[in-house]
Formats: sequence, C-alpha cells, structure tokens
Amino acid sequence: MTKISNNHVLAADIGGTNTRMAVVNENGDILALLKKTTYCKDGRDKMIKFIVSCAEETIKESRLPKEEICGMGIGFPGPLNVETGTIFNPPNLNGWDNIPLRDILEKELRVPVAIENDANAAALGEWWKGAGSGTSSLFCITLGTGVGGGLVMDGKIWHGASSIAGEIGHTTVIRDGIQCTCGNIGCLERYACSGGILKRVNDALLREGDHAGLQPLKDLKQVSHMVMQGNEIVLNIIKETGVILGIAIANIANLLNPEIIVLFGGVTNLGENLVGPLKEEVNRRAFKKATESLRIELSQLGDNSGILGAAKNILSKL
Amino acid sequence: MTKISNNHVLAADIGGTNTRMAVVNENGDILALLKKTTYCKDGRDKMIKFIVSCAEETIKESRLPKEEICGMGIGFPGPLNVETGTIFNPPNLNGWDNIPLRDILEKELRVPVAIENDANAAALGEWWKGAGSGTSSLFCITLGTGVGGGLVMDGKIWHGASSIAGEIGHTTVIRDGIQCTCGNIGCLERYACSGGILKRVNDALLREGDHAGLQPLKDLKQVSHMVMQGNEIVLNIIKETGVILGIAIANIANLLNPEIIVLFGGVTNLGENLVGPLKEEVNRRAFKKATESLRIELSQLGDNSGILGAAKNILSKL
Repeated sequence: MTKISNNHVLAADIGGTNTRMAVVNENGDILALLKKTTYCKDGRDKMIKFIVSCAEETIKESRLPKEEICGMGIGFPGPLNVETGTIFNPPNLNGWDNIPLRDILEKELRVPVAIENDANAAALGEWWKGAGSGTSSLFCITLGTGVGGGLVMDGKIWHGASSIAGEIGHTTVIRDGIQCTCGNIGCLERYACSGGILKRVNDALLREGDHAGLQPLKDLKQVSHMVMQGNEIVLNIIKETGVILGIAIANIANLLNPEIIVLFGGVTNLGENLVGPLKEEVNRRAFKKATESLRIELSQLGDNSGILGAAKNILSKL
Repeated sequence: MTKISNNHVLAADIGGTNTRMAVVNENGDILALLKKTTYCKDGRDKMIKFIVSCAEETIKESRLPKEEICGMGIGFPGPLNVETGTIFNPPNLNGWDNIPLRDILEKELRVPVAIENDANAAALGEWWKGAGSGTSSLFCITLGTGVGGGLVMDGKIWHGASSIAGEIGHTTVIRDGIQCTCGNIGCLERYACSGGILKRVNDALLREGDHAGLQPLKDLKQVSHMVMQGNEIVLNIIKETGVILGIAIANIANLLNPEIIVLFGGVTNLGENLVGPLKEEVNRRAFKKATESLRIELSQLGDNSGILGAAKNILSKL
C-alpha cells in the first residue's frame, strides 16, 4: 500500500444562517464544497445530526474513501472553549449551553475534531492562504451582523486567558457613544456592524433629509444604491463609519504593530467610500513607523476564509 | 575546575535621567546594584564611556571575576531595533541617531549584549519576577513622564512588525481630545502621564477654583498633597484620569484578554484615588469573561523591573 502523504481534512464554517463544509488538503486546495442553510430551528440535537449528515455528504462528494479523512476543523459562533471544544450560549443559537460539540462529533465521525471561534477561523484562513499569506502577524476584522476580530501572531491564533481575545468590536471608540448590547457604551460594533450602519443612515435621513415620506432603508444594498445616486447624507455616514473604524484600527496598529489588517465581511461591500476614509484616519492617528510596515487589505478568500482557517487549525494539530 | 552552573549577567536600566546597573544570576537575585545619574550632557561618545565604566564598577562590586559574567542585558529608551541593538533618536537623548550600541558594547565588554526598549524590559521583569510571575500573558503600563506599554505573551515580548508594539500611550481614548506630541489627538498619554495630569489639574484649578493667587502646582507630590487636604477639584481630575485609563485598559482586556495588567511608574503613587475609578471603569466596559480572568496590579519590583527584565532578556538568549 502506498502511504498517503497528503492529509485531507473536513473543514466547516457553521453559522446561525449558513453552513459551508469542504474537504481540504494540506495545500489548502478545496476538493469538495457543500453550502447549506443551517438547520437549527428544531434545536440542538437535530442541528448536530445536520452537521454529521453534511460531513458525510461532503466526504461522499469528494470521492475520497472515508479513511483518508484525518480530522475535522470547525469554525463556530463563540463564545466557546477552544481547548475542550465546548460551546457556550452563542447569541443566535438556542439550547447550546455548555455543549461538548467536539467530543460528540469525534464519537460520531471517529476522527479528531478541533473547534475554533468563527472570527478566529477566518483570521487563520486569511493568514494561511489569503491576504496575509507569508506574514507573521495579522489582525482580521469581521464586519457583518456583528464586528469581530481574530489575531494571528507568529502563525498562531492568540486566544488570551479565557478565549475571548480579538474582540475589537467591543473596544470603545466614542467615550460617551451609543449604548451597546454588551453593556458598554461607544463600542465599535454599534457604529460599524451592518445593523448599526443602517440605523445611523436611517436616523440621519430622518433628521437631516427631506425624506418625510421615505420608507427606512432595509439593508446595505439599498444604502450603497443611495450613495451611487449621489445622496450626500448617506455618503457622509459611510465616510464617518470609515473614520470610526480608522480610530480602532490605528489603536491596533500602535498597540500590536501587525504586518497586515484584513477587512472581511458584508460591510466591506461599501467599498472605497468606507475604506478610503478608514485608511486616511489610520495614517492620521497611528505612528508613521507602524503604518509604514502595515498593509490594510480586503479579504482575499471571502466566504472560504472560515473553511480554510478551520482546515489549517485541525491540520496543525494532526 | 568546577563548571559554574549559575550564569551571571550584567543588567542595566539606562534612562535620560538615571542609570541603574546590576549583576543578576539566573534566579533573578541581584548581587550588586549601582545607581547613578546618567552622564549624557557631553554627548553620545562620553555617555557610552560612562556606560562601560558603570559596567566595570558593577562587576567589581559583585566581587565576581569578570570571566563569570556571561552577557549584558540593557533596557534603553526607544525607538530602537531589538534585532540589531541599534538606537534611533530617543526623544530625551541627543546624538543617538542610528547608533549600533549593541555592537559597540560587545566590542568593549567582550560579552554578548541584548538591548530592549525600556517599557518592554519593565514588562518582562514584572512577568519574570514581579506581579506577573507565573502568568502566560501580561500587559505592563508605564505611567511616568510618558505612557508606555509592554506586552508579554507566552513568556516572550511581542515586538510587532517594526518593533513599536505596546504603544498604549498613543491609542486614542477621546476622539476629539487633547492634541498629542505624536501628531494624534486624544492619546491616553496626554491624560495619564505626569505632565498631562499636572496640566489638567492646574487648568482645572484656574478654571473652577478660587485660586487666583495660587502658584501652579509643580509636581505630582503637590497634587497628592492637595488631594489629602480634601481639594475636590484636584480629586476629580485624579478620578477622571483613572476613568480614562480604565477605557484604554478595558480595550486591552477585550482585545488581548491578558491574565494580568501591571501598572508601573511614578503616577501610580496617586494610589487608590486613581486605581479605584480605573478598575471600576474596566469592569463597567470590558466583557465579564475578560475581567473575571484579569488581575490589575501595581508593579512589585518598582525601580528594579527594568533591570530584571534586561537580565531575563539576555539570559534567554545565552
């Protein structure tokens, strides 16, 4: 028998809305890719069955014999314990309090499983095969329904003392700012997540605009559309969002001095109107020595960041 | 001949005002300690001669034969390149532009020399033998003439891509705040360094107080004195300084999730009036999961932090 020298692993990016699963080899090639709506409405046990059946379907699609799958890496919504693979109460999933997901899946699938926070998985993916490839330090900011972050230093995710490191979304950018769901005030997330931007745009249109009869905008596509139509009020909120993100990123630059900061998630679709003012603010606030050695770039892997990070995470443990 | 199993090193903490030098063994015991006013008024070459003569004097005082000194560690004002031991333009020292201090001292003293930024050396000292002993992650904040920081992760100083990591003093805490010497506005340093506190106290006394005839306060001892006399205006500025420090530290807690944050430097002599509001603000702003696993403590080593960190730095390279 020839020894298979190229390890293959299952890699999953499981969210409250979508699940992506793939078979990935040591080079980061994706051999099979499954995309499903996460089946979570009937509770935890059914969702675990859904994960197992996705795993089996993905392996089948890869046409590899099951014995050649050496492990499974998962990106999952936090909070969770990365050492034990136990899930605590993710905000968008019910019944997931203190569930030893890693142990359950290892029993079902009979391979080693490693679970990582989804924002950290995306960061590791971008470091391994994306915008941060070849760097030794990376901070990845996820700008979507929430604002998360993941920190890769010397090729390893930094978890901190209780696995919550990276929470840039809950750093204070405006001392007396907007009340946040986390209990703090003036958190970055309230200004830069999709819902936060939408609320600020609608508030500004109501306050400043001649829009008495207008329905509130419902998503960032409509926001982008109004910017393209030349709406200055909306444009100013997007620019202001870039500036506020720039404050938080300048703080990261001076504090951690990373080689690259990767911007990831749906909010980045706002494009140069957001990213331009963001970069200007970083250059205005951070040390020249920090900005000279810093690249700020958009995600290269997009929706595959999490899968590739999850794959790298389990591969590095085999 | 018996092999000496316990390495001895020279360790120095060299500032623009004071120089401390010691012989330290592998256990962190200080065998001889020299304290001098830094001789820097006649330029760089004379200052280097001063450093060499301090080194020889310290070795002599330790009564160890010179051959038993295996290396020298130095904490020096940044910016500097820790890889090459080259000093760039420290703000309080003239003529130190691009000086290969490590190479010069290795030639003079004929032992390996390692140079570290002074704030990082203090952080490493507190991690090795001070308040952070036994932890795996520490952030040390130096509150003195300036506000600096050093980050120890898994027992190693994190330098970042261009050796400036740790600059918490130049993270923005007040978006539209006081203009800083670094070019940014609203930097922590402007509120929490000794000069910044003094200025804010004197401004408040002028503005709010019945102190038309009063001379401006000259140092933090006078500030403490007025607090002890029950001056509410001064007390409120100290409390406000604690709150502002708390914002920056809460950001560190959520971002890096360290086990301990060590407060170091003369400003900490303001005591509980500063540290109490600081801790309250951290608890108010940071995630419970981050604060539950976080200790905030004063330096245990005081003036010896830098020496012990410099010693650990060279010992880990031998």
